[in-house]
Amino acid sequence: MQLTKYTDYTLRTLLYLGAHQDRLSTISEISEYHNVSRSHLVKVVHQLGKNGFIITVRGKNGGIRLAKEPNKIQLSQVVRLTEPHMNIQECFSKETNTCPLIDKCKLKLVFYDAREAFMRSLEDKYLNDIL
Amino acid sequence: MQLTKYTDYTLRTLLYLGAHQDRLSTISEISEYHNVSRSHLVKVVHQLGKNGFIITVRGKNGGIRLAKEPNKIQLSQVVRLTEPHMNIQECFSKETNTCPLIDKCKLKLVFYDAREAFMRSLEDKYLNDIL
Repeated sequence: MQLTKYTDYTLRTLLYLGAHQDRLSTISEISEYHNVSRSHLVKVVHQLGKNGFIITVRGKNGGIRLAKEPNKIQLSQVVRLTEPHMNIQECFSKETNTCPLIDKCKLKLVFYDAREAFMRSLEDKYLNDIL
Repeated sequence: MQLTKYTDYTLRTLLYLGAHQDRLSTISEISEYHNVSRSHLVKVVHQLGKNGFIITVRGKNGGIRLAKEPNKIQLSQVVRLTEPHMNIQECFSKETNTCPLIDKCKLKLVFYDAREAFMRSLEDKYLNDIL
């Protein structure tokens, strides 16, 4: 069981910004620090901006910074944003399902509960808890 | 976040055997029913046998069946067997980690807890709960 690379890069970006709150950061320096391609980070930063986690300052000396205090950035919110489907098994989605038991089997319900337990455990965790 | 195909096939094999406890089943019929390649199922069946979940009867009229009652087959045990690493993030393993923050960052601890919450929620679930 694994979270996507996209979630990983998103969390790393937030960690970087959390560690450099005194100034603006750039995608290039995060890309270099984490050895993650710029194009991946552009997508990450765009989504984080659109969802109010970070602020982009345009212009020559522009850059990005957290839009709120690290103790207001809930990790479960971030993961729900970056892992919107959380389809732990292929039968979680009608598009991917190939299992003929889909209508009878209760496995899905069991894994729904497990996924919720996973997410609930992230609900009281904030960015400042991991900095 | 997704469990591996291997876990999926293992659970489907157990479900099939749970639904046909009155007789021996064959890998070929499970392969056909679930439209999963025989070679994948051979590995699954081998591991399930080695770990005491199923019994293989050799010979012309041979086949496989559950080695214990469905209410004795704990789903968390199965998932721990088929997802031995459960490396939710690349930093869970020194081999895969590329993040320079590995020694300072507490993200791993947070996700360890979340993973444990996931597994705990499977601990009181048995094969008969999903049949």
